[in-house]
Amino acid sequence: MRATQEAVLAEMRRWGYRLVVTPTLERLDVLALGLDGEQRRRLIKLTDGDGSVLALVGERTIPVARLVAGKLRSAPLPLRLCYTGPVLTNDPGRFVRRREAHQVGAELVGASGPVADAEVIAMAVRCLDAAGLRRYQVDVGHAEFFRGLLDSSELPAALKSGVEAALGRRDFVALAELLESTSLRNAEHELLLRFPALRGGAEILEAAGALVRNRRSERALQELDRVHELLRAHGLGDAVSFDLGAIRDFDYYTGVIFEGYGPDVGRPLVLGGRYDRLLARFGRPAPATGFMVHLDLVGEVLWREGWSPALTRLDAGVAWTPAGLEAALRLGARLRLFGMRAVVDTRSRGLEEARGWAQALKARNLLHVDGEAGVVWAPAEGPPIRLAPDEVVERLTHTAEASR
Amino acid sequence: MRATQEAVLAEMRRWGYRLVVTPTLERLDVLALGLDGEQRRRLIKLTDGDGSVLALVGERTIPVARLVAGKLRSAPLPLRLCYTGPVLTNDPGRFVRRREAHQVGAELVGASGPVADAEVIAMAVRCLDAAGLRRYQVDVGHAEFFRGLLDSSELPAALKSGVEAALGRRDFVALAELLESTSLRNAEHELLLRFPALRGGAEILEAAGALVRNRRSERALQELDRVHELLRAHGLGDAVSFDLGAIRDFDYYTGVIFEGYGPDVGRPLVLGGRYDRLLARFGRPAPATGFMVHLDLVGEVLWREGWSPALTRLDAGVAWTPAGLEAALRLGARLRLFGMRAVVDTRSRGLEEARGWAQALKARNLLHVDGEAGVVWAPAEGPPIRLAPDEVVERLTHTAEASR
Repeated sequence: MRATQEAVLAEMRRWGYRLVVTPTLERLDVLALGLDGEQRRRLIKLTDGDGSVLALVGERTIPVARLVAGKLRSAPLPLRLCYTGPVLTNDPGRFVRRREAHQVGAELVGASGPVADAEVIAMAVRCLDAAGLRRYQVDVGHAEFFRGLLDSSELPAALKSGVEAALGRRDFVALAELLESTSLRNAEHELLLRFPALRGGAEILEAAGALVRNRRSERALQELDRVHELLRAHGLGDAVSFDLGAIRDFDYYTGVIFEGYGPDVGRPLVLGGRYDRLLARFGRPAPATGFMVHLDLVGEVLWREGWSPALTRLDAGVAWTPAGLEAALRLGARLRLFGMRAVVDTRSRGLEEARGWAQALKARNLLHVDGEAGVVWAPAEGPPIRLAPDEVVERLTHTAEASR
Repeated sequence: MRATQEAVLAEMRRWGYRLVVTPTLERLDVLALGLDGEQRRRLIKLTDGDGSVLALVGERTIPVARLVAGKLRSAPLPLRLCYTGPVLTNDPGRFVRRREAHQVGAELVGASGPVADAEVIAMAVRCLDAAGLRRYQVDVGHAEFFRGLLDSSELPAALKSGVEAALGRRDFVALAELLESTSLRNAEHELLLRFPALRGGAEILEAAGALVRNRRSERALQELDRVHELLRAHGLGDAVSFDLGAIRDFDYYTGVIFEGYGPDVGRPLVLGGRYDRLLARFGRPAPATGFMVHLDLVGEVLWREGWSPALTRLDAGVAWTPAGLEAALRLGARLRLFGMRAVVDTRSRGLEEARGWAQALKARNLLHVDGEAGVVWAPAEGPPIRLAPDEVVERLTHTAEASR
């Protein structure tokens, strides 16, 4: 998981996103400005010594928004920020399986329009690549497409909220029943019923455009079309699909939204989109878009695919007999100076016993030091070779390069 | 702070330490196995839905010990583990200034003796180097040195605890009064009174050795002497001092202890030592030693010294006019592919306006794209030059290398 976190953060840095650290524990009244009742309920809360209610961080977009409107209020927009850390909830099961989960996320605050939307989607895709995922799917949708359909559907207000709820839980049977209960028939009803099918390549944008009759949905389709063009320029024309039926947090998202899925994972690995209304609640109105990566889920997928992180591989285990201890320590220091990962044993061992030790450590090379001038190099393959201490770094560097 | 965290973790990886992730929130009854009453009091606690008491992580050695005795119980010892993350306390002011602080730490579990002690001290020094600190002091002491003095001092039990408390808060006036109140006089009393002076280079080990009469203190001095020899082999003979008066958490530390200080910081940046009794409390008796780095304090020192992290430097700001947008996105993708950090603007700008934009971003190079084939390169110094898109990567790579 840590390897994934670092790979994703490194990719975000290449896009010029700067890491910010937000608190684990904050006053609830401050966070609450950005939360609805349901989100507030899911936070783990506790009471401070002075009686004020504190909450454990449940997601990090709101703390970042607070930061942008607070400590960073004099920093010019747009701001590109990223974050990482644990998030906690007293209601596991929605996006996370456990009470505690780990996320990395990025926010582009102060930029509106498809160029900014395409930037965060392209970066999300590159982050999944950087994490080592080979098979994934990124679906792009638009919050306004559905809003437009619903507003022009001429449905009574009571029915609209039922339709919203049914679509939110992707319950298409309930949806059909609701729409049949009204005598009205128009193109928007047809589209509402065909939601599940509005998923696929860029061709569905055209198909939907032929059916839609309201300005709001049309504008949403135009924006998605432009995002698609820009993603092509980013080199990612085929990496994303479109899902006009993606319905999520109506009150929060205001434009282009997206989700990333891995093989055999029901929950999204990546979740993002435009939220142009949040920053105003903290006193600095600004358009914004961003996404988060669920590290635990990405880790699970990688683990299932048999991926083992390069980070934990050891270049050398340095074993020693008493006469070689100090030379072994010097050798370890030297290897690290050359950027290699080396463990020097904490007790003396003969060469044969040291082989088992190095194997248990998963060290690529065993070096056994039995005196001031004596180093035996036992690589993973091939017979052991006696080297002078000065030769060791060069030999190992060549081996490491050859296997990279 | 993040740059420091990454630099320190990278150094720990070079020493073969593997990163583990421990929970932010754990059941108090489980953690309490490793805590004394005072430590338990300082934890931030809350009640879970089922009525059990949870605690926010206050330090991470105990969660790591739990891990070694629990999930990792079948992993052979010694284990080299490191961790990072926030820690929280409801009693700021001891080692941290705020309720929430950030630490990186390492634990070497399952190895006793000076080789292991010297390993963690040497790694701690290299971590401070890696963080970018230029001036710091690492003091090494031994919990058993003082224990031996006290046990052989023939002081009545009531007086002993007073002496412990006075030394713990470094209150030498109270200490002198306590010792004067008894009619006993021996070498150990003299040493107890001379504690503040027992600080300096390796020569103080010899000075103390000439005065000390008890086996326990003598053995402590021998161990420190051996640690000093081994630190020399690590290439760090002059990097550490000795402080025989370092008195800390008597019930916790059992052997060699150490602290690292920066210029003008009263609190230690690094705190570590041997704790051979903790693991047994979790059911897997094993010797252990380790240390933690207080990232916030290290960050403060670096900030005061005017250090700015290389991580946040941007290689290129890519600006564009409408005809150049897609070429600009392709250029951004290309630069990132070569490991450079590049921001592509989210709105169109002319060259002059783009200069201000790139400056605000602290980008080392401005690239302005005004068409499919037109890139103007405006480096920080010198006049702008028109380049073909293919030439850009090579030019910037050379610039980046030259300035490294």
